[in-house]
Amino acid sequence: MELLEQRILTDGKLLPGGILKIDNFLNHQLDPGLIQAMAREFKRLFDGEGVNKVLTIEASGIAIAILVGLEFDCPVVFAKKSKSKNISDSVYAAEVPSFTHGNTNTVVVSKDYLNADDRVLIIDDFLATGAALVGLRALARQAGAAVVGAGIAVEKVFQGGGDQMRAAGMRVESLAKIASMDEHGITFC
Amino acid sequence: MELLEQRILTDGKLLPGGILKIDNFLNHQLDPGLIQAMAREFKRLFDGEGVNKVLTIEASGIAIAILVGLEFDCPVVFAKKSKSKNISDSVYAAEVPSFTHGNTNTVVVSKDYLNADDRVLIIDDFLATGAALVGLRALARQAGAAVVGAGIAVEKVFQGGGDQMRAAGMRVESLAKIASMDEHGITFC
Repeated sequence: MELLEQRILTDGKLLPGGILKIDNFLNHQLDPGLIQAMAREFKRLFDGEGVNKVLTIEASGIAIAILVGLEFDCPVVFAKKSKSKNISDSVYAAEVPSFTHGNTNTVVVSKDYLNADDRVLIIDDFLATGAALVGLRALARQAGAAVVGAGIAVEKVFQGGGDQMRAAGMRVESLAKIASMDEHGITFC
Repeated sequence: MELLEQRILTDGKLLPGGILKIDNFLNHQLDPGLIQAMAREFKRLFDGEGVNKVLTIEASGIAIAILVGLEFDCPVVFAKKSKSKNISDSVYAAEVPSFTHGNTNTVVVSKDYLNADDRVLIIDDFLATGAALVGLRALARQAGAAVVGAGIAVEKVFQGGGDQMRAAGMRVESLAKIASMDEHGITFC
């Protein structure tokens, strides 16, 4: 998606440790017009798949997901990072290691909001190692829901998570696919 | 706002300790159509105020705020709950005690995303004691920004925070104002 790639080149910041910071339009400050355009692109890509639930993870995924939900006219559920190690019987739970923060979060979704009738589109801002995607897929599977695919804003292709998920049979659509990034800049696929 | 009040009566759950759970359309599962209608109501209420920045707090405020930002065609910034006590010079910071969780969060916004030219509309899902609103107003003031007001989904009027903010000169518009809630049900103002 040209619009997103250009914005990454203009406003993205590369930090040490392979972190791409896109805080000024997607992860802290949000550009509603850009995110709406992204949501419409996900609608175009997954139209006809019978999507009836959008699943994301707090916090950065929520802004994209709510606009995707508006396009598909279906509910959006965001997995919560659990503060407690004691997971109640009323939730589905999965472990998600964080690439950026170097820790592991338990993410949970209430059993009330994912079920076997759901055709789930997973939405997230970044795809790197694929850990969040694996966790969200696990939540959907626990509910017996079908995952029609994942819509990702920015995929760091060189970290391999996206291709692993595709090899495992998941449809993954990323709006900006980064082949490499280093001190010389960012190259898209 | 009739639509929101009806939804609270239909789907809200009263928990012990004065907690109203509206997890199935605003705080965990999200109803995009309802939230868009709320955003349009905030647009109507604050139209003509020159709003050029929407400020909220992660995570539940984000879904409402992005749709409000789309209505005003302006950027949205969400304050982040800081994991660290060491606050860097690059952020504005404020303390926000949480009524629901019984702890205190430090919330931060990058200095890059709030400034003296901003006319800020604060958006949040709940207003009870007003702690989050005080914190968000403090962030805006540190930046020298003008706060045109606050748009709140659900105000628990009986907890007094909203009227304190109004007495202090802030315009606060709440779409559902709860006068009382107990085992007999919820009464709106």
